[in-house]
Amino acid sequence: MNIVHPSFEIEDAPDYDQILFKIERAGKTCYKTPILGNREDAERFVKMIIGKGHESVIEHASMTVRFIIDRGVSHELVRHRLASFSQESTRYCNYAKERFGNDVTFVYPHWYETGDEFIRLMWHDALLNAENYYFEMLRKGMKPEDARGVLPNALKTEIVVTANLREWRTIFKQRCADNAHPDIRLIMRDLLKQVKMFYPAFFFDIQ
Amino acid sequence: MNIVHPSFEIEDAPDYDQILFKIERAGKTCYKTPILGNREDAERFVKMIIGKGHESVIEHASMTVRFIIDRGVSHELVRHRLASFSQESTRYCNYAKERFGNDVTFVYPHWYETGDEFIRLMWHDALLNAENYYFEMLRKGMKPEDARGVLPNALKTEIVVTANLREWRTIFKQRCADNAHPDIRLIMRDLLKQVKMFYPAFFFDIQ
Amino acid sequence: MNIVHPSFEIEDAPDYDQILFKIERAGKTCYKTPILGNREDAERFVKMIIGKGHESVIEHASMTVRFIIDRGVSHELVRHRLASFSQESTRYCNYAKERFGNDVTFVYPHWYETGDEFIRLMWHDALLNAENYYFEMLRKGMKPEDARGVLPNALKTEIVVTANLREWRTIFKQRCADNAHPDIRLIMRDLLKQVKMFYPAFFFDIQ
Amino acid sequence: MNIVHPSFEIEDAPDYDQILFKIERAGKTCYKTPILGNREDAERFVKMIIGKGHESVIEHASMTVRFIIDRGVSHELVRHRLASFSQESTRYCNYAKERFGNDVTFVYPHWYETGDEFIRLMWHDALLNAENYYFEMLRKGMKPEDARGVLPNALKTEIVVTANLREWRTIFKQRCADNAHPDIRLIMRDLLKQVKMFYPAFFFDIQ
Repeated sequence: MNIVHPSFEIEDAPDYDQILFKIERAGKTCYKTPILGNREDAERFVKMIIGKGHESVIEHASMTVRFIIDRGVSHELVRHRLASFSQESTRYCNYAKERFGNDVTFVYPHWYETGDEFIRLMWHDALLNAENYYFEMLRKGMKPEDARGVLPNALKTEIVVTANLREWRTIFKQRCADNAHPDIRLIMRDLLKQVKMFYPAFFFDIQ
Repeated sequence: MNIVHPSFEIEDAPDYDQILFKIERAGKTCYKTPILGNREDAERFVKMIIGKGHESVIEHASMTVRFIIDRGVSHELVRHRLASFSQESTRYCNYAKERFGNDVTFVYPHWYETGDEFIRLMWHDALLNAENYYFEMLRKGMKPEDARGVLPNALKTEIVVTANLREWRTIFKQRCADNAHPDIRLIMRDLLKQVKMFYPAFFFDIQ
Repeated sequence: MNIVHPSFEIEDAPDYDQILFKIERAGKTCYKTPILGNREDAERFVKMIIGKGHESVIEHASMTVRFIIDRGVSHELVRHRLASFSQESTRYCNYAKERFGNDVTFVYPHWYETGDEFIRLMWHDALLNAENYYFEMLRKGMKPEDARGVLPNALKTEIVVTANLREWRTIFKQRCADNAHPDIRLIMRDLLKQVKMFYPAFFFDIQ
Repeated sequence: MNIVHPSFEIEDAPDYDQILFKIERAGKTCYKTPILGNREDAERFVKMIIGKGHESVIEHASMTVRFIIDRGVSHELVRHRLASFSQESTRYCNYAKERFGNDVTFVYPHWYETGDEFIRLMWHDALLNAENYYFEMLRKGMKPEDARGVLPNALKTEIVVTANLREWRTIFKQRCADNAHPDIRLIMRDLLKQVKMFYPAFFFDIQ
């Protein structure tokens, strides 16, 4: 049994100046207003269209993020329909042969650090049991796609997500909110923090 | 522990004649061709546009289906992005208080009937263990949304799916194919069989 | 030359009670709350989910509307991407042979009734000229799909639009707003007025 | 009166190697197959997934193109719903003040070069008339958004289109086909030619 922390990596995110000027050019196509060609003016333009709710203009820029999360979180994530997903398959991946060796990998939940010791132990036991049943069923000749039935939500999955900046704004607004599930909220808040530094004009007003 | 068979129920499906004539009227708007007003002519028209690949016309009709499936199957189902979903929440449903009484409910997998007795026993044990850990964690004060981490893919879920007939055609083509996961394939083939009887002109060419 | 007023016709709109109970059933699947089965309770539920912004639930119901509008308005209408459209083709319709006889049909703009007489005359002349050039080019052997280049925005078009109730809410919010183009605003406000009467719980908060 | 040829400019298209490796990494996440890190292997992988119809993987890469086309062509283009558009507005652009000076700008149709001289003259006259009525109506105090009613389909428009590579493949398949409208077909075939050179593995099988 292997346990990892949830994590993300921004796989492909265009340079800030590049998307600022791209969005300014696209947006000013609509009104034939002049392009001044400096960052301050472009930032002011982007903030203005976001403020007015004309967010379709920022759809011209996209960002790709790779997440390592549990299957409970990924089930929520793929509900965002205006995004593209490539996810590790539980059908074709035989977890007995994965890179961590002869182990199934799970993901620490948000409550782990501060949780009661006894509950942590139960959680470990539950996963260890699930792993044992999974391996035992594979050994008896079951396919991974059938044995996966006994693997729990805490199972690690890897998923690549591409969305335009308008949709990322929607994702952040929903998943960083106080009523979001803590596991998705924590990772999305970390991502938002980083993205606000990279792309200030596009996310200045969230949180 | 409670185990149910996967099932579906067509919740809302318009009358065949009603959608035949609706689609004929919508499609003939494009070409200003005359509407003859009889079923044979409308069926011929629908089959013709499907044959030519002008499927956008059949988007004007929709069908709603309620599924009882496991969480592994639902994770695949919600990847269809041109559909609308309302799914039982593992966050807000405390499975200890569900309608089947003090039990978590799971779904029989496709291999159950014909499976090896020993593997069936292992599967039962695995789920029983998961259920026990889940209830134990709730008793120790965890929230259902946190304890769900130990619940397996075989967990029952209920999901309502609405899609237009073009998207249902895509879903059937992908999920009834031989390389689809057997659990989603079996239920989708059952649904397709019924839908082909109800709406022959719209699904005549699938399988 | 033929001139018509813009108009719409609700082609397919489900019975209010039917969609109320359908949406209540779909929405309560998420939380496993009991269904009481009376209209007041269902209306309260629908208003509550709209109030909370959980609008995905109302995607399970759709409405189809046929519009007769000009090509300027239809160009704006088809920008709504979460809807299905079947539109009269300017490629395949030879307007010389349309049902109004040997005439091209145009649509009255919003300012016509109250407009200056002289401007109205200019508008008529402009369209009459366009029609004459169009017919002349057809007579010289051009295809309708090429001669259409001289036909103006005021050209009549017929378009069938299907969208779910969530998207209709978005359409109404944008197109009934004061800054919308007057031609689309007038027809959408008329439609909204009718829809608010038919489906009070779904549109109670707009305008 | 000003007349321009239809044209396009690729505004933002990622480097071929960059998207090749990005798509390889995203696609191999699903199956946990090893990444070899050379161009030939990545190209073989991309062609394989396209060949198998698993096109969702290539959604992770996008391309942005700016078109100068007529309003007839743009009305067809915006019917592609899985793309993002920013289009010159006929409401806010007063064509009397555009960059070409005191002129409305139109776009040459596909038949212009080879067309009959007399028909070309008629086309010129038709547009000149439309322009005169438009300016006359503005002079009488009408807003551009109202006077636009007399402007013809041949009116020039500028539109920025962003779509992922899967959707661009769909656009090319439909709009480069023999039954597409010649004006959109010509410009899309030119674009496809260029894109096939830039991104061979992604478009190798079209046409």
